[in-house]
Amino acid sequence: MFMTFFRFFFIGKSGKAVYFNNPMWPGEAHSIKVEKILYKEKSEYQEVLVFESSTYGKVLVLDGIVQLTEKDECAYQEMIAHLPLCSIQSPKTVLVVGGGDGGVLREVARHSSVEHIDICEIDKMVIDVSRKFFPQLAIGFEDSRVHLHVGDAVEFLKSACEGKYDAIIVDSSDPVGPAQELVEKPFFDTIARALRPGGVLCNMAESMWLHTHLIQDMISICRETFKGSVCYAWASVPTYPSGVIGFLLCATEGPPVDFVNPINPIEKLEGANEHKRELRFYNSEMHSAAFALPAFLKREVSVLRDLSLQ
Amino acid sequence: MFMTFFRFFFIGKSGKAVYFNNPMWPGEAHSIKVEKILYKEKSEYQEVLVFESSTYGKVLVLDGIVQLTEKDECAYQEMIAHLPLCSIQSPKTVLVVGGGDGGVLREVARHSSVEHIDICEIDKMVIDVSRKFFPQLAIGFEDSRVHLHVGDAVEFLKSACEGKYDAIIVDSSDPVGPAQELVEKPFFDTIARALRPGGVLCNMAESMWLHTHLIQDMISICRETFKGSVCYAWASVPTYPSGVIGFLLCATEGPPVDFVNPINPIEKLEGANEHKRELRFYNSEMHSAAFALPAFLKREVSVLRDLSLQ
Repeated sequence: MFMTFFRFFFIGKSGKAVYFNNPMWPGEAHSIKVEKILYKEKSEYQEVLVFESSTYGKVLVLDGIVQLTEKDECAYQEMIAHLPLCSIQSPKTVLVVGGGDGGVLREVARHSSVEHIDICEIDKMVIDVSRKFFPQLAIGFEDSRVHLHVGDAVEFLKSACEGKYDAIIVDSSDPVGPAQELVEKPFFDTIARALRPGGVLCNMAESMWLHTHLIQDMISICRETFKGSVCYAWASVPTYPSGVIGFLLCATEGPPVDFVNPINPIEKLEGANEHKRELRFYNSEMHSAAFALPAFLKREVSVLRDLSLQ
Repeated sequence: MFMTFFRFFFIGKSGKAVYFNNPMWPGEAHSIKVEKILYKEKSEYQEVLVFESSTYGKVLVLDGIVQLTEKDECAYQEMIAHLPLCSIQSPKTVLVVGGGDGGVLREVARHSSVEHIDICEIDKMVIDVSRKFFPQLAIGFEDSRVHLHVGDAVEFLKSACEGKYDAIIVDSSDPVGPAQELVEKPFFDTIARALRPGGVLCNMAESMWLHTHLIQDMISICRETFKGSVCYAWASVPTYPSGVIGFLLCATEGPPVDFVNPINPIEKLEGANEHKRELRFYNSEMHSAAFALPAFLKREVSVLRDLSLQ
């Protein structure tokens, strides 16, 4: 599963609006017009809702928070997968934390060098719902290199062999409630341990417009934990709060990683653009551009000053 | 004045929501919590509304469409001004079309090479309201190089001397209703005539997520009209529809202009960052990054393919 931080309105055919509060983005809301509710159930962990919207295609909502829409999921899935995987030579072993909709798997599978993909998702209902309503995302599970583990990612990582992965992609939910530990130091320590020397992490990292303090905290923790590069990048995703989502990219000590200038450009990967469907958002220019940061962010998140000198 | 395309909700203290429809962005709405309505009047041209919001500072709304918020106006004003002005050497004479809030003037005035700034805004009420409620934007009018013309920009441009301007910035409203002619060929012809050889235009150019057809139309017209470079760029602005706004940059025939690699970097302009207030969004990396375009936009707006080869 992945995440967004929004008060969320439904505008039904009656014109009635219902909204949900969330302390992560007070004082604003985004509304998407509902054509038809397709699914609504409580899983062991959260409320899972799927609806057909007027202009964004089908929409997946978890606990009242928009996770993805068919119109703009390409931006998030392609960036969170290819920012790390195009920054290292021939990635072979990849772990996806969360990502139960399958979209990140679909993107990881474009890389023909990849031999083994583990995914650890806690909520089986998200996987089942994606298979039913979002076949263009769930197709990610069909790849024979994918090994699905339904369970807690922290436990899974603890039991993983040291140095097993070339890349780990954390596509988790809000750092409030149960996912809180996914932004704390012990979790990043476990990830760093599971990566090979010079291996890379890509972690969802909030909105630069709304969550500068949280971003600064995550960067500070990661600079302690990862001894290689630590960089912040962002992308435009219309249905996420403030219309952007950030990514924190970290490398462990080892062969140096230059995140800004991709060493493994996807345009040159055989068949990468034809795999399942064409790339819709990512390309090498978008990769490098994602690391350009507004003046206010460089000032407010002071630790970024060092990063910009890389 | 500038523009955004939104259905717009007010959430008053009562929790009551009121929204406006707009055919430019069907099926979605963005809501900002209102703390207090500060001003609401009808001018000769539109309804002018100012309110204090909970988390975005003061907000200016024209005919139910958010024009600016104190929190994120920096992104739009800085990009629309510095993308053109940093792309040419020593701009001296600049015209702003629209921009009655004064924010673009504030940014143009950072350039110490500029000797003369004309602004042509049709609605005097917007200027008066900005002076009263948005002093951090209206400060742009205080610069002694600024010459204010209240009236129709098309008439103003027709009477302007041929080749007068180094740069023209079009900060106008929606291309529906009265501003329709501002996206048609005769208007661009008038602009091209008023620019010196190698002079530049920066025109607000919609959302890449919502308005690809309109973008393609504008690009086609501008490639006919302007014989120099024609480039598309974009920036993140949370309170605009889909969270982004585009800019069309055009140069007339003459000394070639490389929009992507700024020749006049603002970091090196004496005092540019201390003028009135620090830059909040723009820097040279953000300038170049703004021209990186998602794969879907390159495909859907086919004429962009040529541009990307520049």
